Amino acid sequence: MDLSEIRKMIDNIDSELINLLCRRMDCSLKVAEYKAAHNMPVLNQQRENEILERVAAMCDEYRSGYGNPAKLIFATIMDASRGLQHSRMGSGSELKNILQSAQKNLIAPDKARVACQGVPGAFSNQAASRLFPGCIPRFVETFPDVFSAVEKGEADYGILPVENSSSGSVHEVYDLIIKHRFFIVAAAEIPVNHCLLALPGAKVEELKTVYSHPQALAQCAELISALNLEARPYVNTAAAAQMVAQKGDNTICAIASSNAASLYGLEVLKENIQSAENNSTRFIAISRDLIIPPDANKISLIFSLPHVTGSLYRILSRFAVAGLNLTKLESRPTRSGSFEYLFYLDFEGDFGSPDTLNLICALSEELPAFSFIGNYRELETL
Amino acid sequence: MDLSEIRKMIDNIDSELINLLCRRMDCSLKVAEYKAAHNMPVLNQQRENEILERVAAMCDEYRSGYGNPAKLIFATIMDASRGLQHSRMGSGSELKNILQSAQKNLIAPDKARVACQGVPGAFSNQAASRLFPGCIPRFVETFPDVFSAVEKGEADYGILPVENSSSGSVHEVYDLIIKHRFFIVAAAEIPVNHCLLALPGAKVEELKTVYSHPQALAQCAELISALNLEARPYVNTAAAAQMVAQKGDNTICAIASSNAASLYGLEVLKENIQSAENNSTRFIAISRDLIIPPDANKISLIFSLPHVTGSLYRILSRFAVAGLNLTKLESRPTRSGSFEYLFYLDFEGDFGSPDTLNLICALSEELPAFSFIGNYRELETL
Repeated sequence: MDLSEIRKMIDNIDSELINLLCRRMDCSLKVAEYKAAHNMPVLNQQRENEILERVAAMCDEYRSGYGNPAKLIFATIMDASRGLQHSRMGSGSELKNILQSAQKNLIAPDKARVACQGVPGAFSNQAASRLFPGCIPRFVETFPDVFSAVEKGEADYGILPVENSSSGSVHEVYDLIIKHRFFIVAAAEIPVNHCLLALPGAKVEELKTVYSHPQALAQCAELISALNLEARPYVNTAAAAQMVAQKGDNTICAIASSNAASLYGLEVLKENIQSAENNSTRFIAISRDLIIPPDANKISLIFSLPHVTGSLYRILSRFAVAGLNLTKLESRPTRSGSFEYLFYLDFEGDFGSPDTLNLICALSEELPAFSFIGNYRELETL
Repeated sequence: MDLSEIRKMIDNIDSELINLLCRRMDCSLKVAEYKAAHNMPVLNQQRENEILERVAAMCDEYRSGYGNPAKLIFATIMDASRGLQHSRMGSGSELKNILQSAQKNLIAPDKARVACQGVPGAFSNQAASRLFPGCIPRFVETFPDVFSAVEKGEADYGILPVENSSSGSVHEVYDLIIKHRFFIVAAAEIPVNHCLLALPGAKVEELKTVYSHPQALAQCAELISALNLEARPYVNTAAAAQMVAQKGDNTICAIASSNAASLYGLEVLKENIQSAENNSTRFIAISRDLIIPPDANKISLIFSLPHVTGSLYRILSRFAVAGLNLTKLESRPTRSGSFEYLFYLDFEGDFGSPDTLNLICALSEELPAFSFIGNYRELETL
C-alpha cells in the first residue's frame, strides 16, 4: 500500500472518530447537567479509572502494545470533556465572590507608600520607580521586612524580586506571599545592566581591584579578566559602590547599576559589562488586599499535586482546551504535608473572559491546595 | 434521562471509539514502515496541522465550543501514534550511540580531583564530601571557574549547586553545562542547617551583632529578633565565620555551618536555627565525559518549545504513557533564537528500560532543541 492510500484510510477513520467524539461530548454535557441538578461533583475518579482499565485491556487484546497509547488518548478525552463541563457549569462560587469584590484601582503611583528590600541604587529601587513612577521607596533589610511593613500598614505595596534570568526563582518570596495571604498587584521585568564605576577622574588603566556582589562578579568575569583586575566579593552591588565613593582611592572600582553611580557620585567607566546578553530580574508589587486593575493581563496561581507526571499533564490539558498561554510553570519539591510538589503557574489572561473565570474557579474547587495570588498588569519590558 | 442511561450511551460510543483507535494505530504503524523503507522522518508537522484544523472546524460546526477540546484529543491521538511508531522503529540512533559508548565508572571517590565554588566550610564543601567521600576539594571563586578547572583537566569533577529549597534553581549553572557540553554524573541534596557560631567561651547573652550571608540572615530572622541581635550582611557564611574567629570579640557571632565552626575553631551555640523546617540545596557533580554508572537512577534533560500550554502538555503525555515519574519540571523564558521557553526536566529512570531509552531517543529527534545532560545516581538525602 502506498502512503496516500494509508492516509485516505486514516482520514476516513478520523471522520468517524470526529462524529463519535462530538456525540460523546454531548453525553458528557448531559452528565454535567444531571450532576448539577443533583448536586454531585463533576469528577468521578473511580468511574474514570474503570473506563481507562477497560480501554487498556481491550486495546492490548486487539494488539499487544496498544493499551498504553489508548489509555493516554482516553485520559485526554475525559480531561477535555471535564474542561467542557466546567466551562458550561461554572463551579467555584467562593473564589468567584472574592474576585468580584476585588478593588479595581491601585493608589496613584507618586502617592503610593512603597517598601523595597536593599539600599538606594539597588535594582529593586529601579523596579519601584518603574512600577510606581514618582514614589519615594522606603528601604528595609530583608524580604520578610518588606512583608511586615505592608502587614503593619507602614507601606501600601512591597517590591520583591521573583525571578532572575541567571539565578532563577526566589522561592522565599512565594512562601512569604502564601504565609501572609498577600496578592500580586503589578509586575515588571527590569534589565540588569552592570556598569564599572569608579571615582570621577579615575582611569581604567589605573584600576587594580573591583568590588561587587559575587553574582555580579561572576556575570562580568570576562571583563574582569580582560582588565586583569582582582575581584573582591562584597555584600551587594550598591553597597560596593558606596564604599568605593567613600574610600577616595583611584585604583578601586565597583560593579553596580548606573543608578548607583549617580546616587553615590561615581563615574560610569563602562556600561553593559555582563557576559550574558539578556540579564534581567522580574519584580512584583504585593499588597494586603486583592486589587484587579481594569488592564490586568496576567494571572498567577500556586497549587500542590501528589506527583508530577500524570496529575500535572491533566491540569495542563484544561489550559490547553481553553487556549490559554502559560508564561511560567515550575515544580518545587516539598516535604511538608502529604503533597510532593508545589507548582507556580503564570498565564496570560484576565477574568473578563468567562472561560478563564470558569476554569480558575473550577480548579479552586478541584485542587486540594490551591492559591489564586493575583490578576495584575505585567508591564512591557523596556 | 438518568445517569445510568447516559453512561450506557457513553460506554457504547467508547466501544466504537476503541475499535476505530486500534485500526488507526494499525494504519500509523503502516505509515511508519513505509517511511522507514523510504527513509522519511516520522514527524510530518504540516500534515498534523492540517488534520487538527479540519477536526476543529468540523467539531465547532457540530456544536460551538467543541473545536478546542477535539483538537486537544486529536493532538494526543497523533502523539500517542508517534510514540508507538518510534518504539517499534527504534529511532534516535545518534543519541543511542552516545549512550551506549558512555563510560560506566566514576573515579574512586578519594582519588577524584574535585573542584568546588566557595571556601572551606561552605555547603559546597559538604556536598563534595558527600559525593566523593575522602576527596580533598580544590576551591575556586566562581561557577565559571569550576567549569574551567574541569575543562582544562585540572579537576576530574566539579561540584555545583543547582537548586535551593528557598532561593530556587541556579540557571547560571544550567547555562554553563550546555555551553561546555558537560554531563551530570552524580547528585545529592545537602541539608542546610544554619548554626550560631561564636568564639569558644562566648555566651549567648553577651552577643550583640551577627554576621552572615543576607539569605542566611533572612532564613534565621526569627532567632535574630528573639536574641535582639543586630544583623550585618557578609559576603558568605564561611567567610563570616572566619572573620568572627579572627576578631577576638565575644559580642559578635556568625551564622554558618557546623563544618565552618570546626574549621575556624568556633563554638556552636545553637543548631538548626533557620525558620523553615526543610532548608536544603541540591548539588551535582559535572564531568567532561559522559559517565552512566550501573546504579544510575535519574535522567536530566533540557529542551526548548515554542510555547508552553499545548506543546508541553503533549510532551508530558509521553512520559505519562511510559509511566515515568518526573521529579523536576521548570520553564524558563528565553529571548534568544526562535524559542520562547527552555525547560528543565528530571525524572526517575535509567536506560536499562527499553521504553525509557526509546522515548528519550525519539524526543532527541522530535524536539528541535534537545540536550541529554546525564543519567546518574541521585544519593538519598541523609
